[in-house]
Amino acid sequence: MSVEQSAPRVAFQGERGAFSEEAAARLLGEGVTLVPRPTFDSLFAAVAEGAADCALAPIENSLAGSVHRSYDLLLESSLHIAGEVVIPIRHCLIGCPGSTLDRIRTVESHPVALAQCERFFKAHPEIRRIATEDTAGSVARIVRCGDPTRAAIAGKRAAEIYGGSVLREPLEDHSENYTRFVLLAPSAAPIEGADKLSLVLKLPHRPGALHRALEPFARRRIDLLKIESRPVEGRPWEYHFYLDLRASLDDAEAAGALEELRGQAASVRLLGCYPSARPLTS
Amino acid sequence: MSVEQSAPRVAFQGERGAFSEEAAARLLGEGVTLVPRPTFDSLFAAVAEGAADCALAPIENSLAGSVHRSYDLLLESSLHIAGEVVIPIRHCLIGCPGSTLDRIRTVESHPVALAQCERFFKAHPEIRRIATEDTAGSVARIVRCGDPTRAAIAGKRAAEIYGGSVLREPLEDHSENYTRFVLLAPSAAPIEGADKLSLVLKLPHRPGALHRALEPFARRRIDLLKIESRPVEGRPWEYHFYLDLRASLDDAEAAGALEELRGQAASVRLLGCYPSARPLTS
Repeated sequence: MSVEQSAPRVAFQGERGAFSEEAAARLLGEGVTLVPRPTFDSLFAAVAEGAADCALAPIENSLAGSVHRSYDLLLESSLHIAGEVVIPIRHCLIGCPGSTLDRIRTVESHPVALAQCERFFKAHPEIRRIATEDTAGSVARIVRCGDPTRAAIAGKRAAEIYGGSVLREPLEDHSENYTRFVLLAPSAAPIEGADKLSLVLKLPHRPGALHRALEPFARRRIDLLKIESRPVEGRPWEYHFYLDLRASLDDAEAAGALEELRGQAASVRLLGCYPSARPLTS
Repeated sequence: MSVEQSAPRVAFQGERGAFSEEAAARLLGEGVTLVPRPTFDSLFAAVAEGAADCALAPIENSLAGSVHRSYDLLLESSLHIAGEVVIPIRHCLIGCPGSTLDRIRTVESHPVALAQCERFFKAHPEIRRIATEDTAGSVARIVRCGDPTRAAIAGKRAAEIYGGSVLREPLEDHSENYTRFVLLAPSAAPIEGADKLSLVLKLPHRPGALHRALEPFARRRIDLLKIESRPVEGRPWEYHFYLDLRASLDDAEAAGALEELRGQAASVRLLGCYPSARPLTS
C-alpha cells in the first residue's frame, strides 16, 4: 500500500486519543489525517460520504472477543478489508492535573474497559464506576470539569492529548490484552504481501453444511484462523459465518478452494485479501 | 423434569418484570419462586450459594446474537444445561400513569433494547436516549420518580408489576425478535425427551482442526445447530468453540461421535443434554 506516503484521511470511532487512533497511527504512520466519528455507523459511512479515504474498525479484543457491531456493518457496507493492525491495550487511571489516587471517588470509562480492571476496583471499594460511551472522551470530560475526585480509564495517549495526569498504570487484570483493527477501503485492488483472506458465508440449513464448507480449505491444509457466527436478520437461528484464513488469492490452491466453496454455499462474499498484522512488539 | 411440581427457586438476572422472569415463568410455570440477581456473575453463583435451585441465563438473541458473558460463565461454572426456552421480545414504551407520548423527553433502557427501537427514535428526534443497566429496573425508577417526561423501554410484564402505563407497543424495529435462555442445574442427571446436546471444545491449533472436529457429527448426519467461538483468556487468538447439536446421549450414533471427538480435541466438555425449546407460539 502506498497510503503511508500520501497522508490519507482515516476515520476511527471515538474521540481524539482513543485506542483506535493509536491503531491508525501505528498502521499508517503518525502523519495520517485522523477523522474522529462518534458511532460505528457513522464510522462505516465516512468513506461513502467523502469525509475519509479509509476507515479503521475494531474487530476483536483478545479478552472480550469479537466486536459484533463491526461484523454486522462489514456485511451491510461495500467496503473491503485492506489491512489489519493489532495493538496492546494498556489501561491507565487518569485524573486531573494535581489529583492523587487517594482523592478519587468515581472512575468513568467504556464498560469493557471498566470490566477489564476488576482487580483495581476490588482493591478500591470506595471508588464508584460510571459507564460511559468511550475511554478517551471520559478523559476529556474529567479534565474539562477539573474535579480532583473524578478519574477516567483510557490509554496514555488520551492523558497526553487532554492534559490529564496518569495516576496509576497498568490497571488491567490481564496483560495479554490486545485489540485487532481492520482497515477498510473502497477499492478491492490486490495488495502486495497479502496473506490473509476474510470472507462471509450463508449456508443452506442442513446437517454437515458447515463441515462441508470448511472441507475445501482443510483438504488443502489452509489454516482457518477464526470463525465467527452472527444472526441473519429476520431469520431466527440462521447465521452468517465469517471466516479468516491464512491464504492469498494469488495462490492457486486458495483460489481453487474458494471456487469449490462457491459451488455449495448459499452465498459467499469476499471481504478482503490483505497482509496480516506483524507479530507484536508492545 | 419434575421441577414444575415442586416450585423450584430459579435465579434470573435483572429486576422483577425482566424478560428473564417471563422466560422462567414460561419454562417452569407461574408458581415458580423467582430469585432476582443483579449481575450475570451473581446469577451463576446463586445455585452454589444455596440461594436458588437452578438459574436461567439468556444465551442468545435472534437479532443481537450470542450473550458473551453467559458463554464465558458457562465455562467457569460447574452447572449443567438442563433445558432451554425461547420467548418473543416485545418492547413497550412505558411511562408514568397519566403521561402521554407527546410529553416524553427521555427514554431509559438497556442499550440492546434501545438499539432495537431505532425506528421509533428516528421518528421522535425530540426524545433523548439514556442507557441503563436493565429494562425492568428502568420502569421501576421512572414510575417511582413520577416525572411524566420520562419513559422506559421494557416488556409489558414490567409495566404491570410497577404500575407503569404502556404508551406505545410494539416499539421494536423487527418483529422476529426472540431470546433463548438456558436453564442451569447442579446435576447432570439424564433428562427425559432430551434431543439437544451442548458442548465446548478447545482444539489444537493446526490447519483443519475445526473441520476434523465437526467430521464425526457430519458423517453421522447429526445437525449442528450453532457454533460460537470465545477467546481463551491469556492465549490471544485461540478460541473455545461451543457447539449445539441436534442429538441425544441415549443415541448410540451421537455417543459414538462424541467418543471420536474426545480422541482428537485438546479438550471436550459436555455442557448438557436437554429437551430443545418447542416451536414458538408468541
